[in-house]
Amino acid sequence: MSLESTIHAKATEIAKLSYEMTSAAGSGHPTTAASLAHLVTVLMYTHMRWEPGNPAHPASDRFVLSEGHAVPIVYAAAADLGVLIGWDPSDMRPMTVDDAMALRDIESVIDGHPNPVEGFPFFDAATGSLGQGLSVAAGLAAAARLDGIGKRIFCLIGDGESREGQIWEAVDIIRDHDLKAVCPIFNANAYGQSDPVSEQQSHATLVAKLAAAGFDAQLIDGHNPAEIQESLSVHASSVHDPDAAPVAIVARTVKGWGSPSQQGHGHHGKVADDAAKQVAMDELDTTSRQVGATADTPLRIPDITARKPEAVAVTAVPAFSDAVEAAGLGAAIKDRRMSTRRAYGVALQALGHADARVVALDADVKNSTYAEDFYKDETLAQRYFECRIAEQNMVSFGSGIGAAGKIPFMSTFAKFFTRAFDQIEMAVNSGANIKLVGSHAGISLAADGPSQMGLLDVAWFHAWATMQRQDGTPGFYLLNPSDARQAYALTMQMAEYNGPCYMRTLRPDVEFLYNDGDQFTLGGHEVLTEGRDLLIAASGYMVHEANKALERLDAEGIDATLVDLYSLPFDSEAICDLANANNGYILTIEDNYGAGFGSAVAEAIAGDGGGFSVRQMHVRRIPKSGRTPDDVVAYCGLSADHIVAEAMSILQLTTT
Amino acid sequence: MSLESTIHAKATEIAKLSYEMTSAAGSGHPTTAASLAHLVTVLMYTHMRWEPGNPAHPASDRFVLSEGHAVPIVYAAAADLGVLIGWDPSDMRPMTVDDAMALRDIESVIDGHPNPVEGFPFFDAATGSLGQGLSVAAGLAAAARLDGIGKRIFCLIGDGESREGQIWEAVDIIRDHDLKAVCPIFNANAYGQSDPVSEQQSHATLVAKLAAAGFDAQLIDGHNPAEIQESLSVHASSVHDPDAAPVAIVARTVKGWGSPSQQGHGHHGKVADDAAKQVAMDELDTTSRQVGATADTPLRIPDITARKPEAVAVTAVPAFSDAVEAAGLGAAIKDRRMSTRRAYGVALQALGHADARVVALDADVKNSTYAEDFYKDETLAQRYFECRIAEQNMVSFGSGIGAAGKIPFMSTFAKFFTRAFDQIEMAVNSGANIKLVGSHAGISLAADGPSQMGLLDVAWFHAWATMQRQDGTPGFYLLNPSDARQAYALTMQMAEYNGPCYMRTLRPDVEFLYNDGDQFTLGGHEVLTEGRDLLIAASGYMVHEANKALERLDAEGIDATLVDLYSLPFDSEAICDLANANNGYILTIEDNYGAGFGSAVAEAIAGDGGGFSVRQMHVRRIPKSGRTPDDVVAYCGLSADHIVAEAMSILQLTTT
Repeated sequence: MSLESTIHAKATEIAKLSYEMTSAAGSGHPTTAASLAHLVTVLMYTHMRWEPGNPAHPASDRFVLSEGHAVPIVYAAAADLGVLIGWDPSDMRPMTVDDAMALRDIESVIDGHPNPVEGFPFFDAATGSLGQGLSVAAGLAAAARLDGIGKRIFCLIGDGESREGQIWEAVDIIRDHDLKAVCPIFNANAYGQSDPVSEQQSHATLVAKLAAAGFDAQLIDGHNPAEIQESLSVHASSVHDPDAAPVAIVARTVKGWGSPSQQGHGHHGKVADDAAKQVAMDELDTTSRQVGATADTPLRIPDITARKPEAVAVTAVPAFSDAVEAAGLGAAIKDRRMSTRRAYGVALQALGHADARVVALDADVKNSTYAEDFYKDETLAQRYFECRIAEQNMVSFGSGIGAAGKIPFMSTFAKFFTRAFDQIEMAVNSGANIKLVGSHAGISLAADGPSQMGLLDVAWFHAWATMQRQDGTPGFYLLNPSDARQAYALTMQMAEYNGPCYMRTLRPDVEFLYNDGDQFTLGGHEVLTEGRDLLIAASGYMVHEANKALERLDAEGIDATLVDLYSLPFDSEAICDLANANNGYILTIEDNYGAGFGSAVAEAIAGDGGGFSVRQMHVRRIPKSGRTPDDVVAYCGLSADHIVAEAMSILQLTTT
Repeated sequence: MSLESTIHAKATEIAKLSYEMTSAAGSGHPTTAASLAHLVTVLMYTHMRWEPGNPAHPASDRFVLSEGHAVPIVYAAAADLGVLIGWDPSDMRPMTVDDAMALRDIESVIDGHPNPVEGFPFFDAATGSLGQGLSVAAGLAAAARLDGIGKRIFCLIGDGESREGQIWEAVDIIRDHDLKAVCPIFNANAYGQSDPVSEQQSHATLVAKLAAAGFDAQLIDGHNPAEIQESLSVHASSVHDPDAAPVAIVARTVKGWGSPSQQGHGHHGKVADDAAKQVAMDELDTTSRQVGATADTPLRIPDITARKPEAVAVTAVPAFSDAVEAAGLGAAIKDRRMSTRRAYGVALQALGHADARVVALDADVKNSTYAEDFYKDETLAQRYFECRIAEQNMVSFGSGIGAAGKIPFMSTFAKFFTRAFDQIEMAVNSGANIKLVGSHAGISLAADGPSQMGLLDVAWFHAWATMQRQDGTPGFYLLNPSDARQAYALTMQMAEYNGPCYMRTLRPDVEFLYNDGDQFTLGGHEVLTEGRDLLIAASGYMVHEANKALERLDAEGIDATLVDLYSLPFDSEAICDLANANNGYILTIEDNYGAGFGSAVAEAIAGDGGGFSVRQMHVRRIPKSGRTPDDVVAYCGLSADHIVAEAMSILQLTTT
């Protein structure tokens, strides 16, 4: 019993430090932390194969704390174990109790919720917005399998948090792809923030739901070291048993374990004052004695036995025309027409062959986004993960794959990424290297109507383009190619760049605007026609309408400049210079709601103070179904005719 | 058996029309439609209590088509039954087969996916973005119970679609609130878009998952009229049996029922050409004969027996100070300090007493958002719905409550609404009257760090402010009050206005800026200080930092104007006039990422072409935890000192 008694002693010690550090911070969740004291002790001190001196070791077992607010208990263990911390990977130091006591200080690397890029690389993902961790864990397991690394991924999930549907999307993907290396551990402490948890999230219902989803659910006492160890052993055995169901653990725990004064309803996220804290800690000592806690046995962290992944050689990708020919789509080269989504499929397949780190994911629309080009290629298929109709899980799952050093390309309709914006934000906060490709963007989808159209994505990614990540690069590059060759080239650029990118693709075939040698860059733009009377800055499908308008404007004697604004952020100074060369008259055109490209141009112009004028054309009403793109473009007032009229109005001219 | 044979005949007839109309449209989902032919026939012709001549009848049974792409089968039935259609509620006409054949035409009210405000008020919600319908159905049931209307809500859900976690969030809320009037019917046709459905969504697993969640799951053959009728009867009985579990139906169906040439993998969303269509329809006739279809019995739609809801009298709300005193918070009036989230709670409770249509929802943070003021009031508690940690379900559920004529106020952290943006968009497309209140917005939350901060919400709602709904009003009003009294007043304004509103509230207490008599409007702004050298336009928490900066600027001899920009959209002309009165120098300040208020000001200025200059201050890096708002505000470069420096820089001055 001495290992058990030592685990009780250690659990008590880190629970007490959780009270100390949250009191010092003046905020935090010490009672949730205490409910995890034994689980964290068994995992971090006795079961996980990892190294405190190399907490990001790629072959070590990993720990995803989905209920991020419980993090003080992990920090307490990390301070005790001297886990390396620091913002600069080349200048890390062992964590101390003083570090723990600096929790949530603006100068401290010990942040309020887990975040690997805020100085705590023991974690792979920022958590705290609930329901996302199990998907990340599944992604880490998927990447480990691709790399042949036999590590396990432990994921601690709150019972209240398991109300989030995404948890059950993750449960399903673990089954679909047999990702048994993930060990989901539900912390059934029976209390949410504002109420006891629903009966729908009781330990009994969680066990029933997991069983219905095909899991072997182990119900244990989460404060009993032997039961914890036994259930973890069952998980360990299951990983290598092809006949075993995936194992999940439902641990009944006590919120505020050991301290009756902190238990029951009303203690969530509350920090005790000094007196109450002392009571809580004295009670913990008493409880600890009652359960026989004695630190009389050394706790030993098992060695890492898995091997590190091997470095991957990256080869060159073919030119667009060659890739298109190789894909059997040569007719498109002759016709000079192809949709940008089709080009994405060609690019993804070519990339897959050039770079073994590239992984593809899609949410049951791979035959629409053309991610199926990757999936149907036998040599690539094992790096394709079908995520089914569950976009939130896809994004967090992909973010986990990216955290393990892969380059995940995820696709679905631009519209459907909208429901995963929280997950996307958490991925950026994690420093994740993710590539999102949203198809059927804007209104050119036409027939299916607004329930399938990406209309608000541009504004949201525009916000990301206004800030910088920890390394000074934009939160996101938003790319909106107008032509197949450009979409192909930008897909390659996304893969080469280490950071978050979002590319929109279009449903209809569109004419080629570019040639094989043309270069495109993240942050770039392209001058298609040089004029002097008016600058037209169009993006995506609208470049083609603008092109049509240009001919008619020419007939009216107007010599307009046309810029293909395919990136956010873009070079504001260059756009201002172009405006300057066009008398300061600017017309922007995009087929989504506003706060997008036109807004970014207006910001550049208004920031410059040059006295220029920006007229914006964008979608200003809810679209509806139309049988052709032309119908819907006209319905939304964005046809070439509308563009001509707007241009004439800016120049205060009337058509001849 | 003659009723059954007639149902077969009718099912065949509407399945055939589904082929005809999708072929005419050139797109659509005839095979999914065919899989629902019998279910829709039994429901619409024999089981639901409703009136084709009054499809929006508030006491009728309702039909939510969660898998919106299957809508041709409902349109086909509606054309046969002469259901009233039209954009103008005062000028409706019975639908004809010609209308059905105009599916997806730009001039047609028969849209590609369900939408009540595009001319088809048989539905209550726009669907098509998957996984949302069951939540809407639960909301309709919740509203019906509040109104004492004994109607039932039938919800058809795709099996592939049931991968969306939101479906299971909805299942849980039906259990939590005992909303047995909802009849979820899973269409288990075994095929998704790009693949057969996962084993995790097989009919057997769906039954197991429903049972685990506490449902009585009826597994039936979805093409057997008797089994359909029997399962619907079981549901009908369960509604009034307090001991009965909620009933759900899992219907095994055939995608492309009746037409072997259209069955199996590869037919999702594909429209047959003329020859293939003829084959499919001939096959349908053959199958129909084989199952003994004969239209020899009249199908009768049962009468509506439930009564309509009664009109509600609305009384006046108290002045802010009185409401605060009544809430026992009088000290705040003396201190002249209160958080805007606290004021929201006071407002919500006062509103609840003044207007019985007001319903409150929250996602397990009601003690943080202060929705608990409503919940804890015994006279209001029955109109409070705890939605637990499941924001997507909350938004669609609230949207359903709104569709039934209630005024739903939904609250959670601003950050967590992000994951429900798709649901919010579908609610707007539905014409829903929803009120969202996102707390802990911006960076003043401080200690918890970026996983809990609303940083990208402003940009997204900014996009909504750039377009108009069907009635010409903005897609959303975004409100960002800086002061408790303003938050109180704007809550009342939101309730009075029929349309979507989003209000951000702040965590920390802030000083009062306004008095009881002050008026605030959706679309308004407030000039706090009139100057002439520089226009400072600040929003939310930043108004207070700007106020501090104003004193220091005054000491430097700079006479700045301060505007509290609390709404998007705002009166652009008025802001341009203010800029004009301040030499055209503008500084905007907000504590979120960009593409928000500053961007909207830049758009107004650049659109005006007046040569003014807009300098924006906003969050430009990922925030981290800090122990005080001041710490994080300084970390993000938004303190009063930073504002002073920026103002001086705009005016090309140096501090004395």
